[in-house]
Amino acid sequence: MRVKIPATTANVGCGYDTFGMALGYYNYIICREAESASIEIVGHGAKYLPRDERNLVLRSAQALCDAVGSGPLKLAFTAYNNIPLSRGMGSSSAAIVGGLTAANYMLGQPMDTAALLHMAASIEGHADNVAPALLGGFTINVQEGGLRTRRLKIPGALRAVLAVPDFPLSTKKARAIMPKWVELADAVYNVSHAAWLAVALAGGDLAGFGEMLKDRLHQPYRCALIPGATDVIEAAATAGALGCVISGSGPAMIAFYKGNKTLAQSIGMAMKQAFAAHQVEARIMRVAMDNTGTQIEAG
Amino acid sequence: MRVKIPATTANVGCGYDTFGMALGYYNYIICREAESASIEIVGHGAKYLPRDERNLVLRSAQALCDAVGSGPLKLAFTAYNNIPLSRGMGSSSAAIVGGLTAANYMLGQPMDTAALLHMAASIEGHADNVAPALLGGFTINVQEGGLRTRRLKIPGALRAVLAVPDFPLSTKKARAIMPKWVELADAVYNVSHAAWLAVALAGGDLAGFGEMLKDRLHQPYRCALIPGATDVIEAAATAGALGCVISGSGPAMIAFYKGNKTLAQSIGMAMKQAFAAHQVEARIMRVAMDNTGTQIEAG
Repeated sequence: MRVKIPATTANVGCGYDTFGMALGYYNYIICREAESASIEIVGHGAKYLPRDERNLVLRSAQALCDAVGSGPLKLAFTAYNNIPLSRGMGSSSAAIVGGLTAANYMLGQPMDTAALLHMAASIEGHADNVAPALLGGFTINVQEGGLRTRRLKIPGALRAVLAVPDFPLSTKKARAIMPKWVELADAVYNVSHAAWLAVALAGGDLAGFGEMLKDRLHQPYRCALIPGATDVIEAAATAGALGCVISGSGPAMIAFYKGNKTLAQSIGMAMKQAFAAHQVEARIMRVAMDNTGTQIEAG
Repeated sequence: MRVKIPATTANVGCGYDTFGMALGYYNYIICREAESASIEIVGHGAKYLPRDERNLVLRSAQALCDAVGSGPLKLAFTAYNNIPLSRGMGSSSAAIVGGLTAANYMLGQPMDTAALLHMAASIEGHADNVAPALLGGFTINVQEGGLRTRRLKIPGALRAVLAVPDFPLSTKKARAIMPKWVELADAVYNVSHAAWLAVALAGGDLAGFGEMLKDRLHQPYRCALIPGATDVIEAAATAGALGCVISGSGPAMIAFYKGNKTLAQSIGMAMKQAFAAHQVEARIMRVAMDNTGTQIEAG
């Protein structure tokens, strides 16, 4: 069987630690029964990701086996890693969700989607990426009597361009730069923008969605870790994007747009040049959004 | 002519300085042409509100005359004040919106609704109450290239019970207790709750609306100014309310519910008793929500 897991972008500007979106760009994990646990890796990380029990796909699959009491993992995986690592595009969440979904399927689906989501969030430490990776669409995560996730369908006309720098940025480092205290006025700024953005997206108002992407809670700090980030945001907007933000904790930047390939190319070129002016080489990716989430393709 | 202006409740829990809602409870202002400006006051504040140019209805009406260049105000007003003063129910916003709307009508409507809203917000100093007072419904205010207001229709089944203490609390005092800095985790808490709440309300999900009313940005501080507030919130929930929050900056508390008069009475009784245990005498008011906003009833 094969599992198809979307890349994801967390935070989405004003929704720090709250919003996530699934991108139409995928990792694949093939899985078959075996005598013991193993994994082959193709693509990103093939040269340095661990193949032993530290591997995130194996760890996640084993955690599911443990949770349902089915003993040691006896599955052989092959991971096709298309999602760049440590760029803010949800590669670790894809590994976790992929490992859990594959193991769950092979064991006869002992866990439902809600249980998978909670387990994935627990392994990842937060739900920003695992929720959209599993469910697809735009997700709002809230801690209210435990983790709760609300999913919105992303309007079909929304598209994105990513500029992915050639250097990694660990989530740990990106979290360490965050302050413990913020100005109340900045909190209010994000509260109001996040409420408006979510209502706009739910109602198919892409212009409103784009206008409310702005953020004062995390990007002011994290832009310092991504040379050129502020210029990239401005360049994307000038080129016609609805808005542009740091994807997750970066360093990838994601610009949203509504329009054709020509517009996407203009936006991508503008972002690439803005990065280049800061000596950052960036790969441009044009993606649709994903409303399906993780899919099992039984072989 | 007569103007009918709804009471309003600002903040709505997690939406500090962002959300507002119009209540089905009204002030009325009657207005006629005269040789000079004057106002009579019936109801709340009749004994002590100023009748001269400091009066908020007159000041607002005069400000509109000034803005459109029509010279000194020549209107005689009678204000029927049903909305209690300094309780967090938008009495000053009702005066401002009423004065502006009446003067605008008498001058042949030189200003449109958007201009009235900006003028009202400018006189009040914030838009939390003036937006729902003017437009009705549930409003999201954002500062993004100036004040912007998004309006949602409130589902018909939503109702509220207010417990209005017998002591006033000035907005100034309630603002002075607010900290300048808040924890990032508390900001995230409100960002996520506010986004979920707004989407829930837009989609008619009243249970979701109620569950997400919780707040960590202003109520933890302001409850200290309202003896019994924390107990009132808990008592209302136990009695079957969807949720209960400080109305505006208080001291009134507002509980939302979906159901019949019997449920409303249980909730009101529970709130009244919780206040009484803290030696606070509270008046209970049962109100519908308003989706119409300020209305002109030409005579």
